[in-house]
Order: sequence, then C-alpha cells, then structure tokens
Amino acid sequence: MNEVPHLTFDPGASGVSTGHLVVPKGADCEALSLPVFSCNRGKGPSLLITGGNHGNELEGPIVARRLAEWLPEAQTCGRVIIVPEINPLAVQAWTRNTPIDGKNLNRVFPGRVDGSVSERIADAVSRVLLPMADIVFDLHSFGPTWDIPPSVIMHPVADADLMTKMIGIAEAFKLPVTLVWEHNDTPGMFDTVAHNQGKVLVCTEFGGGTVSAGALAQYEAGVRNGIIALGLAEGEADHPLREHKSSRTLETLVSDELGSPARGIFEPVCSVLDEVKQGALIGVLRSMESLSAHPIEICAPTASVVYAIRSGGYVDGNEAVAFFARPLKV
Amino acid sequence: MNEVPHLTFDPGASGVSTGHLVVPKGADCEALSLPVFSCNRGKGPSLLITGGNHGNELEGPIVARRLAEWLPEAQTCGRVIIVPEINPLAVQAWTRNTPIDGKNLNRVFPGRVDGSVSERIADAVSRVLLPMADIVFDLHSFGPTWDIPPSVIMHPVADADLMTKMIGIAEAFKLPVTLVWEHNDTPGMFDTVAHNQGKVLVCTEFGGGTVSAGALAQYEAGVRNGIIALGLAEGEADHPLREHKSSRTLETLVSDELGSPARGIFEPVCSVLDEVKQGALIGVLRSMESLSAHPIEICAPTASVVYAIRSGGYVDGNEAVAFFARPLKV
Repeated sequence: MNEVPHLTFDPGASGVSTGHLVVPKGADCEALSLPVFSCNRGKGPSLLITGGNHGNELEGPIVARRLAEWLPEAQTCGRVIIVPEINPLAVQAWTRNTPIDGKNLNRVFPGRVDGSVSERIADAVSRVLLPMADIVFDLHSFGPTWDIPPSVIMHPVADADLMTKMIGIAEAFKLPVTLVWEHNDTPGMFDTVAHNQGKVLVCTEFGGGTVSAGALAQYEAGVRNGIIALGLAEGEADHPLREHKSSRTLETLVSDELGSPARGIFEPVCSVLDEVKQGALIGVLRSMESLSAHPIEICAPTASVVYAIRSGGYVDGNEAVAFFARPLKV
Repeated sequence: MNEVPHLTFDPGASGVSTGHLVVPKGADCEALSLPVFSCNRGKGPSLLITGGNHGNELEGPIVARRLAEWLPEAQTCGRVIIVPEINPLAVQAWTRNTPIDGKNLNRVFPGRVDGSVSERIADAVSRVLLPMADIVFDLHSFGPTWDIPPSVIMHPVADADLMTKMIGIAEAFKLPVTLVWEHNDTPGMFDTVAHNQGKVLVCTEFGGGTVSAGALAQYEAGVRNGIIALGLAEGEADHPLREHKSSRTLETLVSDELGSPARGIFEPVCSVLDEVKQGALIGVLRSMESLSAHPIEICAPTASVVYAIRSGGYVDGNEAVAFFARPLKV
C-alpha cells in the first residue's frame, strides 16, 4: 500500500512549528520531505506561502526563509504556513522543470498520488496544504534570460468578487507592478486549482532568477506588505519600489506576447516599463549564421508598456521575446 | 581524408569582409561554419575579438556584433577580426559547456584536429585565427547565478613585459575593474595558448550572462575604449562606469576563492565591490533539509574587496560562493 502525502507535525498547534510535508515515493524516486514552517497565532486568516515551484527562480525560496525568521516576532493573529521550495529537485538542479520526469510542476496541478514525482508533489500540495489556506502567495520569478519589474500577478477568473479581492491584495504588496495576465495555458496551474476552490492566489514575479542583497530586501518588503495588509502582522515595510518611481496596475492579454520572427540572438533595445508607441523598436534579432545579414528589427505591435523583455539569449522562431501591457481597465 | 580548418575568405583583403571559419566534421558532428568579420585598414596592430567561448554568456556575442557595425566607420588602421561565437553549439543551448561532448571549450586549447567538437573548435581558433593576431580580446562573463562588476581580467604570466602590457590595455577599457587573477586551472585555456606565443590576451568579464540595453552600452563602450587605446580607431567612448564611481585595478589569489561550507541555498548579504573586514558576514547558507536549522554564516577570510558573489542558487559543499580581491601591488 502506498504512503499518502502528510505533514510530520500539526500546524494547528499554537505558536511556531516546523516539520516536513512528505511526498510519497513512486516508481521514479524515493519519498521527498519538504521543510514546512507554521506560525499559528489563533483566529484570523490562514495564509500559505510557497516558493521554488520552478527551480531556477531562487528569489522565492530565499524570501520565504527570511519571512519565516520575521514572522515569529511580527505575526499577531491567524496562521501562516511556508514551504520555501515545493520543488526541491528542480531547485537543486537550477532548472525550470523537474529533472526526474521533465515536467513543469505548475502545469500538472492538482496532480496524482500515483503519478510521476511532479504529479505527486502537486497532489501533496493540493490535498494537504491548500485546504488549510484561505489565501496563497506563490513566489515566482520570470527566471533567467528575462528582465521584468518586480510584480505581483494573477490570471483572470470569472468570479468578479474574487478578482477584485485578488487585485486589492496584490496592490497591497506595493511592488512596482500589479498585473492581470490573460494566459492561454492555465489548466494545471496551482492558481487554477486554488481559484476553483474560491481561494485567493496571487503570484509574485520577482526577477530574473537570481538575487542581490538589495533586490532581496525589496522582494521581502513586498511580501511583508501583503501580509500586513491581510491583518496578520503590524507595521509597514519600506523598499518595495527601489529605483522605480511608482506602482502601477496593468493588464496583459494573450495577444501581448510577442514571438521572435526567426531564430537568432535577441538583443533588447528598450527597458522594462518603457512606454512605447506602435511600431517602436524594442529589440533586434541577430543571425547566428552570417554577419553580412542585417539584424531583423522587432517592433511593438501596439502602443503599450514593455512589461517583460528577453535579456539576451538565443531564441527559436516564435519563442517569446517580450510581453506588453497597458493600464488595467476597471 | 579529413578537411582542415580554414577561412572561407581572405581577411588580408583591404576593407570589410565577412565569411566563415570552417571547423571540420568529426565523429560526433558535422562541420561547423562560424561567422567571421574582418576590417583591414592596412598597417597597424592586428586584433582578434572572440565571444561565446561559453554558451551562457551572451554579453560577448551581442557586443561583438555591435563592434562589427561600429568598426567600418571608426577604424583607421590595422586589422580587426571578430568571431562573435566561437562555440555556437553552447550558445544555442545556453550552456557553459559544449552540449555534444560535454567539454569546457576554454579548457581544451590548443585542441586537436581529430578530437571531439570542442577540441576541433579550439584547434581551428588556435591554428587559423590566433596566428593572425597580435592581441586578443576574449569576451566572457561570469555567467548566471553570479554578480560581478564589469571587468577586464588576465591571468598572471611569467613574462613581466607582457604582463605590464596586458594590464595597460585592460585598464584602457575604463571598466569598473581590471583584475589580475591567479588561477590554478589555466592549462587548456585560450589565454595560455596565446600567452605562450607572446601575444596579449585579455578577457572581459561583463556580468551574469544576460543583458539589458543599458548594460550593453557600458560593455560595448569598454571594448571600444580598448580598441581606441590600441590606436585602431579614434575617439573616446563614454558609459564604461555607469553606476560605479571609479575604475580600480585589483588582484585575486588562488586563496581568494571561498567555497561553501556545506550544501544549501546561498543568500548574499553584501554587494560586489564592498570593502569588507576580516570576519565580516558576506552571506548565509540555508539548509534545504530543515527550517529549524540555523543558517550558516559565511564570512570574509581576510580584509578585502568583494569581487564576485553568488547571486542565489543551490550550491554543493566546497562550491565557490565568492571571490575576494585587493589592490594590485605593482
């Protein structure tokens, strides 16, 4: 008989507890033990914070640990459960997908107890942790080879009340951008499973997968602000803007993803949050086959704000090189 | 009979020419054709600029292409040959090592004509291009998961005159750091083959493997300054300092590489170019096994300048997390 996913401790106990979420073994690997932190201060909202869904996005795992050090002093009510890496195999390999089964963990939710390791992780998170939470902060980044402003994003949901609530919570982080992101590929996302249960789930998109001491302070302050806005802790954290001038709320449509016209090396010629006119040059594509070929100019399809841009790298034809956005119409 | 490595054009021809360096086929893959640019303005120094030695360092390939657009107007004498990617297979895969044979191209110089693909590339570069050059600029970066100040580096050589010449050329880039880097692992490097032939070779170390429009302007300006200092072009480029205050010349010894005391997630708590005292905290190591374990504090072994620091990431025990430096004693 297979083991079932479970916690090694009772997060309902008062105060701070730590332990593990056990993901049962399967045909492809042994059981995993994911470290879990819980701080229970009684009545109030129940928040789940997850990081390391993709393994080459290290901002989340580090910020999650810093929050686990801050909360025991700061938290005044409710419960916060933190899992810094829900995909430790990918974090150790510094890869987006899980090395053992090659799957994107954030496309296999709600998972299967008898599936491959990514599916078993998704099943453990969905069945054991998600039911304990009213609100989820899933800490992501755009990963290497992308430049983005630190953001809180969410995918649109049909439930207008839930949508309003999510936007409000996302804006409370006070990071440079809150983004409502229309996405074609939402089935299998952690978001979708949470939203289907009527829960609030917002994702951070912190940066390019790596960290500096200064950037970490900004990211941590953003999540602290979110926690404070939920009423779970007191105070106000600074740093969430750093070099950015103000916060704004934007939306990105499916048509705002710009694919490369050919394969080659992408060179950005604009910066994130630049406001561009229709037809403005945002990057050039350089052939790797010949130096006599002229670079292909890549232009903004509509007047918009540059939300994310490839920060160099070889791209295939149709591979995304930019995401555009515009102020959210309320 | 095997093909031999060769150029498809004559870089001795006057003016601008482009063509390819043919790396012969071998047991592991077909022949490669690496795009090559040449601008020949007659008498004067002969400079070879190479990029893409490691495939996850995109700054060099992009800057190299931008120089090939600038030189036809700017160059006044001598000859400049540019190969934006000497390892296109690794650039396409965004990997440090060559995917087909798993080798680090910069450890197999001077290569072998009948070797694996990395060795055949090294052989083609060493036999066909290097003899044409007096000076080589090999455009590297530290690659992903590292934070460093834009630099020009060289490994120490016994020939004092060559060393002085290299430091002078490196400083002429006017990037934030010129670094003399003592390194245990120089056999097989492109540098070593060039130095053994009495040639000047300096490497840039631009950044973390990715680019922004602003950073590219800085990197390109640095190499332009180097070219201008050689007398190959006129003018002076700006931008080489950006947010840095001044340029400095440092040295790093073998003992200045700090390995991680254990495996875990490295979190930097200092910034590059910070001046630190002996014992100063520079980062913490976070266990991925347990949240109740205290983070391990990682401290500076001597009073020094932080030259490079891991920008987050899972590290194994003994894996490098920082390089320190101090002002070069002349």
